[in-house]
Formats: sequence, structure tokens, C-alpha cells
Amino acid sequence: MHIAAAALLAASLLLAACANDPPDQAGSAPNATAAWRPRPVTGAPEPNDVIAKAPADAWRVVDPDALLIMEFKDGGRVAIELAPAFAPVHVANVKAFARSGWWNGSAIYRVQDNYVAQWGNGDAKTALPSGVVRQPAAEYDRPLSDLRVRALGYPDSYAPMVGHAESWPIGYDPAAGRAWLTHCYGMVGVGRDLAPDTGTGGELYAIIGHAPRHLDLNIAVIGRVVEGIELLSARPRGTEKLGFYKDAAQHVPIARVRLASDMPAAERPAYEVLRSDHDTFGQFVTGRANRGGGFFQRPAGGVDLCNVPVPVRKRA
Amino acid sequence: MHIAAAALLAASLLLAACANDPPDQAGSAPNATAAWRPRPVTGAPEPNDVIAKAPADAWRVVDPDALLIMEFKDGGRVAIELAPAFAPVHVANVKAFARSGWWNGSAIYRVQDNYVAQWGNGDAKTALPSGVVRQPAAEYDRPLSDLRVRALGYPDSYAPMVGHAESWPIGYDPAAGRAWLTHCYGMVGVGRDLAPDTGTGGELYAIIGHAPRHLDLNIAVIGRVVEGIELLSARPRGTEKLGFYKDAAQHVPIARVRLASDMPAAERPAYEVLRSDHDTFGQFVTGRANRGGGFFQRPAGGVDLCNVPVPVRKRA
Repeated sequence: MHIAAAALLAASLLLAACANDPPDQAGSAPNATAAWRPRPVTGAPEPNDVIAKAPADAWRVVDPDALLIMEFKDGGRVAIELAPAFAPVHVANVKAFARSGWWNGSAIYRVQDNYVAQWGNGDAKTALPSGVVRQPAAEYDRPLSDLRVRALGYPDSYAPMVGHAESWPIGYDPAAGRAWLTHCYGMVGVGRDLAPDTGTGGELYAIIGHAPRHLDLNIAVIGRVVEGIELLSARPRGTEKLGFYKDAAQHVPIARVRLASDMPAAERPAYEVLRSDHDTFGQFVTGRANRGGGFFQRPAGGVDLCNVPVPVRKRA
Repeated sequence: MHIAAAALLAASLLLAACANDPPDQAGSAPNATAAWRPRPVTGAPEPNDVIAKAPADAWRVVDPDALLIMEFKDGGRVAIELAPAFAPVHVANVKAFARSGWWNGSAIYRVQDNYVAQWGNGDAKTALPSGVVRQPAAEYDRPLSDLRVRALGYPDSYAPMVGHAESWPIGYDPAAGRAWLTHCYGMVGVGRDLAPDTGTGGELYAIIGHAPRHLDLNIAVIGRVVEGIELLSARPRGTEKLGFYKDAAQHVPIARVRLASDMPAAERPAYEVLRSDHDTFGQFVTGRANRGGGFFQRPAGGVDLCNVPVPVRKRA
């Protein structure tokens, strides 16, 4: 009992250190305590202030060659940052589809409330653009070893550990040495049929509701919406099973989808995301976990991975 | 070390028991283990099958006197079950507002993406209907002791413990003996100004995005949408700060709001919710935490409280 108590004390001290401003320590489990309890931090920085004061080196530019721009026929566009480091073959497919004009004239055909908006072209029966791999391997997780991980510092109900790497929300398992992208709001994945099919990337979906984390490790996640999510989340819900629209007349037509790098420089939007390996990111997490100011009387002292929306800003 | 290991082994056995079908044990923390790990259950029941096979006594009828029916001018209605056991004075206010016709002719004036849809009438400067308490106490939590709680059985990033009581999603603290409603998708709360104001209930919001659990214990939660959430979640997002609509012309007009018990019996909709104290509910949670079947190759072995949508069905 004495030794157990000492072990638990040590563990809770680790948590205290971790929860205030998680250092880069991929191995420390915040729930490695008996009955984890939230530890509210009063006077934590306001998340918006943290962003406003972030130094230039806290941001990284989104590579225009990993930035997908989807334009709707009725106006408006959605920008999606791709994640080649997590699903290289599926992302290469997505880029090949974009360059071939695959999605031009396609549509959003499924919007399921509190779940996903899905678009694209059926790809099983049609000829694929050159360079598209018809059946990529299941790129559902990747080695943890070469990722610089910031542990979130709070328990998770799906993964042994969660945090951020290269500014992406991840789940990871230090024991197995694997990491994976999580289905947080705005994340984009590849529609697929039953295994062994993993989807080519010809049909994509974005998360528009409470994070369906049970999809993690079951599907290829290839990116996230960095601008225009409301053009997906505010669409009428489909009334058929799984949120499919009943009539083609209800589909939301897509004019075209291009890589930013293929757009004229003058038209090309540019974005920056907050670096998860910068101290500013840790301050942002602490602020999200301890909302205070005038409105919040009781800071939570904890935060869900998917309630830490990775800050994005548009470049002039 | 030996004793610590034994303690942790005991704790993990407890988790195993808890995760498969959580019994009514409010005190056992599933994250009372060193580095909690998901424990996938293969062949878990399909959640939809569990609901389809639920016996009659697994359901409870929603009290028509605790059921708010909001009708929009452009058609469609939203049904909201009230939670008098958690915020009695605020709920009594809401019922008094409804009976006085307070919201008839009001509107949704704020829709913030991935957050809330909010409606009602400003109440600070106007005369309130009789029976409305202008400044109720902060009904943000309540005693745990007289609730029959089903522990979820998985870690949470906000509360020491989470689970369900009287078919409501709750956070709770066995040490403090307190329990509170959580801001899951579809939950309805009371708009307020800065403390000590708690809001009268004249302005309400519904959660339409990833659960903003940091609002827990900071605001009065008075119910949940049991039908028609898509009539709130699919509205155009407001372009002003916090998602307020820029022009009144963008407001979504509300024709009227009534208690079901005040509607003619023939018009009155009726609902049932799955009883959280029935074994069927435990099977549903296990199924949600271990999605399998043809599509899911890797059951999660865990689930977020807010990814266990409490089953509701309409009565004939």
C-alpha cells in the first residue's frame, strides 16, 4: 500500500506537469493515476489571446502542393490541407484525381446529421486517371518513432494516448509504436467499401458532427478542412438511410477541385497552421482546457483532443 | 513495486468488468489503471439490433408535461425533453415561458458552426410572465446520491466519472457527491449574461457540434432535442462574431412553442427513451464502443460519453 501510494503520487505529479503545458513527452499517460481528476488552472491564457500574440515562427505555411481547393457551382469554396505523411498513397491518389479534373461536375450526395458530408464520383466501375492506385494498402496508422509528438495531457476514451504531431490531432500507442490521425470535426477521410477495399480517394467525406472516433484506424484519413467547413456542415441533411439525398436534384454540385499549386498565383489562397511543436501550441491547449475570463466560472481543467481545433490563419 | 503491480492488476480487472457491460457502480473509475488501454470486444452486438430487440420495459415514456414543441414558420418542428430533476427552477421558468406564448413570433438569431443554435427573446428589459423567477440559483450540478447511475466504463477528459442517469448523459464526482448534465450533441441550455446571472430560460441554445464540454458546470442545462435537431444544425451559419446573423432578415422565425401537454391530444407527439438503468442500455453502450460487422475491422474498445446518443423512439 505504501509503495502503491508512492507510485500514484509520482504519477499524479507527472500529470500536474503534463496538464499545465504538455512538454514533448510521448510516453506519459495522463490517466496513469488512480481516478484521474480535472485540475483547473485559474488565470490560464485566453486561447484567442495566445493566437493573437503568437510569434511568426509559431506558424508553418500549408504547402500549396498539399492544399485542395473545392469550388461549388453555387459559389463558395472549401480548402483542404492534405496529410501525405499519414496516408501517402491515398494522398497521391487524391492529387492525381484533382489534376485529372475527376471531381469537376461531381457533387455532394450525402449529408448525414452529426456525422459526415460526402462527395465525389463512384470509382469502382470507371477507368481511373493515370497514376491512381486502385487498391492502396490500409494506410490507417504509421510509425510513431519519427513523429515529434506533443502529448495532450488529458485522458482519452479511445486511444492509450492522444496529442498533436506536425499540427495534426493524433491517437498513438507508445507500446506498439504506432500513431494515427483522429476523426475530429473537419477531418477528411476516404470513402470505401468493405475490406480489403480501402477506397481510392475518388470519394471523400468530411466530419460535420461530434467526432466519430470509432472510425479511427478503420479508414484512411487524408486531411482536414482549413476553410469553408460551414459550406459542408450547413447543407440540408439527406433523408435516405445514412443521409443520402433522395433525388439527384438535391445534390450540391461541385464546379471543380484543384490543387492550390495548379492555380494561378493570383487566385491561390494560402494558409498557415500553428506549429504543434512550438510552445505557443502548449499555451493554446492550456487555454482551451481552462476557459476563464468573465463567462466561465469553473475552468474545466481538462479538454478533449477534438476540442482543441488546430489554429489556422489565412495569409495575405 | 510488487504491491503497486497487484493494485494495478486489480484495477485493470475492474476495468475489464466495467467495459464489457457497465453495472450500476458509480464509484469505479475506468481510468484507475496505469495507462488505460482500449479493450476491443469482438462480436459485440450491433447497436441498432440492440434497439430493435429492446423489450417494452426497456423504454420510458417522455412526460408530455416535460416536452417542449417548437414549430417554425417555414414548417417543421423540434421536440425538446426537459430535465426538471437537474434544473428545477430553470425548467419551471421554461414551462411558464411556453404557457405564456413567450417564444411565439421569436426566432433563431444565432447559429455558430460546430457550436450552438440559439433562439428566444431578450428578457432583461421586459416584463416576465407570471411564475418566472428572474434570477434562479446556479442549477449547474445536483446531488449524486439519489441518482441511479450507469458508469460509462471508459475514461473522460473533463470529469472524474461519466455515465448515464435517468437516461441523461452526466458527469459526476463520487468524492464530492455531485452530478451534472453534459453538453453533448443536441443538449439544450439556458443563455445567460455574466455571473451572477444564470439566465431565466427565455433564451435557449442547442448544441449542434462537437460537445463543448467546457460549458459543463458553467451553465444551466435544461433538456435535449429528441426530434428535429437537423432543423437547428443545418441552418445557415451567422457571419457575425459568435455566429449571430447580420440582418434580422436572416433570422429563422419561430411560429410558436408549446408544452405537449397543452396541445390537443390528437396533435400531440409522443416519445420514449431507452432506460439507462435497463440492461439493454448496457448492451447498447458496449455495441457503440465496439462497432463491428462488415465495415469496422478494428472495434474501438472505448467510446466517448457523447458518442452514446441516448436512443429515442416515437410512439404511435
